[in-house]
Amino acid sequence: MTGLTEQVEMHPQRWGDPAAATDLPDSARGLIELAFGLSETPALDEVAVPPSAIPDELLDPLRGVLGEEHVLLDDGTRRLRTRGKSTPDLLRARAGDLSDAPDAVVRPGSHDDVAAVLAWAVEHHVAVVPFGGGTCVTGGLAARRDGFAGLVSLDLVRMKRLVSVDHESMTAVLEPGLRGPEAEALLAAEGVLLGHYPQSFEFATIGGFAATRSSGQSSAGYGRFDALVVGLRVATPRGEVRLGSAPANAAGPDLRQLFLGSEGAFGVITDVTVRVRPLPDVQAYEGWRWESFAAGADAMRTLAQAGMLPTVLRLSDEAETAINLARPDEIGGASSGGCLMITGYEGTPAAVEAKRAAVTELLTGLGGAPVGEAAGEAWAHGRFHAPYLRDSLLDVGVLVETLETATFWSHREALYTGVKTALEQALGEGTLVLCHISHVYETGCSLYFTVATKGAAEPLPQWLAAKAAANDAIVAAGATITHHHAVGTDHKPWLVHEIGELGASVLRAVKADLDPTGVLNPGVLVP
Amino acid sequence: MTGLTEQVEMHPQRWGDPAAATDLPDSARGLIELAFGLSETPALDEVAVPPSAIPDELLDPLRGVLGEEHVLLDDGTRRLRTRGKSTPDLLRARAGDLSDAPDAVVRPGSHDDVAAVLAWAVEHHVAVVPFGGGTCVTGGLAARRDGFAGLVSLDLVRMKRLVSVDHESMTAVLEPGLRGPEAEALLAAEGVLLGHYPQSFEFATIGGFAATRSSGQSSAGYGRFDALVVGLRVATPRGEVRLGSAPANAAGPDLRQLFLGSEGAFGVITDVTVRVRPLPDVQAYEGWRWESFAAGADAMRTLAQAGMLPTVLRLSDEAETAINLARPDEIGGASSGGCLMITGYEGTPAAVEAKRAAVTELLTGLGGAPVGEAAGEAWAHGRFHAPYLRDSLLDVGVLVETLETATFWSHREALYTGVKTALEQALGEGTLVLCHISHVYETGCSLYFTVATKGAAEPLPQWLAAKAAANDAIVAAGATITHHHAVGTDHKPWLVHEIGELGASVLRAVKADLDPTGVLNPGVLVP
Repeated sequence: MTGLTEQVEMHPQRWGDPAAATDLPDSARGLIELAFGLSETPALDEVAVPPSAIPDELLDPLRGVLGEEHVLLDDGTRRLRTRGKSTPDLLRARAGDLSDAPDAVVRPGSHDDVAAVLAWAVEHHVAVVPFGGGTCVTGGLAARRDGFAGLVSLDLVRMKRLVSVDHESMTAVLEPGLRGPEAEALLAAEGVLLGHYPQSFEFATIGGFAATRSSGQSSAGYGRFDALVVGLRVATPRGEVRLGSAPANAAGPDLRQLFLGSEGAFGVITDVTVRVRPLPDVQAYEGWRWESFAAGADAMRTLAQAGMLPTVLRLSDEAETAINLARPDEIGGASSGGCLMITGYEGTPAAVEAKRAAVTELLTGLGGAPVGEAAGEAWAHGRFHAPYLRDSLLDVGVLVETLETATFWSHREALYTGVKTALEQALGEGTLVLCHISHVYETGCSLYFTVATKGAAEPLPQWLAAKAAANDAIVAAGATITHHHAVGTDHKPWLVHEIGELGASVLRAVKADLDPTGVLNPGVLVP
Repeated sequence: MTGLTEQVEMHPQRWGDPAAATDLPDSARGLIELAFGLSETPALDEVAVPPSAIPDELLDPLRGVLGEEHVLLDDGTRRLRTRGKSTPDLLRARAGDLSDAPDAVVRPGSHDDVAAVLAWAVEHHVAVVPFGGGTCVTGGLAARRDGFAGLVSLDLVRMKRLVSVDHESMTAVLEPGLRGPEAEALLAAEGVLLGHYPQSFEFATIGGFAATRSSGQSSAGYGRFDALVVGLRVATPRGEVRLGSAPANAAGPDLRQLFLGSEGAFGVITDVTVRVRPLPDVQAYEGWRWESFAAGADAMRTLAQAGMLPTVLRLSDEAETAINLARPDEIGGASSGGCLMITGYEGTPAAVEAKRAAVTELLTGLGGAPVGEAAGEAWAHGRFHAPYLRDSLLDVGVLVETLETATFWSHREALYTGVKTALEQALGEGTLVLCHISHVYETGCSLYFTVATKGAAEPLPQWLAAKAAANDAIVAAGATITHHHAVGTDHKPWLVHEIGELGASVLRAVKADLDPTGVLNPGVLVP
């Protein structure tokens, strides 16, 4: 593990901070044994990475620019920059396959350093994979390497500055390598908040949020990440792009929205200008119970269309609610049945009080039953923990994965049924499909599915078949292949159904213009 | 005037409905004479358009597809589809120059008709200018014709359907040829509202709103047009693009934002799916007086950053306020001095009451003085009238034009001073430069300037020099060359300063991909 800067690194075969991982509680073990059986999988061996295939002397110019210590070829460093954290990624790593390991890890410290790496990559035809937090769940770090002289991971770990804060405009310029908590800590020292909390918050980075159009658990209140971005700086093989002359403009197409979601295929985002808010004085979360998923969803729609969204708003379907209720320590002992909604409020005491009163009146009128703050606190307490639980379940032979989509309100029920049915049919009897609405808009919402089933002898093809069936169902429903997890390599075959042949052609044209030799994240995003 | 569908057509040399034009009131004449002198210009002659240069038989295939009656070559029809309504456009027309007249006007009735026109245009290398309301003020209808077999105006006047309303998702699908009031009338019959009111509302069209990223007078409450669009259908020379799988997604770059603002250069928008709202029960407008432009702007910023925006919010600077106050019938007899802010509230009685109370408390606390509803009503009454006044002023030899930009709050004052100074210096003593903040965001605002000066013997070069100086000042301030009037041909030389050489390159790449022979609005938008 030579030479990495001081940050907690994730285990190549598991999520998160090794120190934060927990065994399954005994109560859960019993339930899981009942549902899926337990098949203790072998302890994880340290997996060998393939030897670096890049000629060492090819890297000499980069050593000159970045410094010896920022051009790394050792197995430990390369292992930690291999793929992301989808269940397929973990299954491959658990099965001893780290064949996607980069040949080298390079660590630029500035925009100019990134530009130098790209120029070098073009000159020597080396594939470049921008790397932020490594939390990708769509294969966005598994670039194609055939035809290239090698593949390097462009690790943004050194670019962690808060460049500036404009307190009058309430914007801040952040470097891409800042992890969520690091960005918030720097901003908090300035009295402001970004407010972007995806489940990957603790490890994912600002650059990744932008490159993947991330959405967070408080996006009802603070907005999706793409809605928070007012400016970008991007290093491309053909030079620099700087965008963001105003909050909004009519100066042609909004090119910011072309680089947001570009997944490292058009350029490397080297800084991001975001909206910030005052640090909230109050954070309050609570639970509501609804008779049915449909009733809760209708209430969410009513809130959104009335312009009365709280900061956090999510709703579990009956199955997900029941699973949560099976762990009463996490839902505050709420009475069972129905569907659990979490509402959260952040801001000044007066603003929170006013919003909460209005939302409470509306939800009560629509038939919601308040179940108190304990349920909300339990959710807030565990909000980043699910990926650790996935590791524990994989350890005992249970196959677990999530996927998400979004649609307009009038298509919600058909999408829900379509995806759920596809997953149940693909994975067979005894499969558990849970769902929650993770994000709402005036015109629609996202659906976030969690799937658990007894792992087959070969769990990877088992899951890939189920995921393909789910994707087909999503496309059939006219919904989006991904609401907040990006395209990567995993969703690419389905993207063309969403944006059409011409949409795909436009992406190829932009790619060819900015990255004519195709060194940037080859095989990712662009059909 | 053969064969046009039944709608009020604008005079080639003037704005709007000829029946709605009014002479200058005598009180204003006196004031204007004092400020600029009066030099009665000659009565407007009907200007001859150049003969159609397109070989008649070239149009035969289109006659087969669209019908004889929708392929028009007569002078009257061509005259009405010549250029837009900027002051330079009007000055050219008044000077007898309609050299940009299309060779023919073709009127497709459907997406497939549009596709057929584009296929024909590609085959015969004919330039195509999509035409909606003809209200463009940036030269977006003055396409280049050199090297083409001719230039046709693709008039969307027959595509005026409300295709569908989704009352659950609160979206509606509109055809591009619907003028603002036509769209609202069709939606009102369904109990819903679009809420997009640019000054050109009475004549501009849905397709134009989308193609130019329009912003309206109620955008504080309802959102800019690009924020209202959730889906698009576009006909391009290479085929159809359909976008809009969900309110938001992470399926790569948001390609909707590439066609919004594409100004007919990438394709012809053939339908638009927009957010709609319930018809408001209440509409209330009122005025506030502020000690200074800066104090009022700070109050706007506070409202925006507190998430407390009314539906309408605008603020005139001292000079614009004084001019309004010189016409006391239009501002409700408010006491003079300071800066006039208009606030407007639309919605349910309860929502309006709550928002209004909160805004009133905040504005009062910040030092605003309410001046009553009469000032608000006067503004609402005259909200679409300014372009008629421009005609009357041009008639008496006063040069009048508007321009607009936007920036972040911390740059507002520098931008304001920079543009105002540039205009005053370019146009000389006695020039009146008025400004208002027309739109606000959490992070910034737009500045909308109105300029009046004594017209020179050659007012066109006089204005073009002043406009260039203003554009240079905008670029120097790092602001946007246009907040809501698009690029057209007039802003094109400055666009590259805003999006950079690579941004321009991306636009060219997309253009080349979708319109390989370059027949769509040649010379417009793309640097």
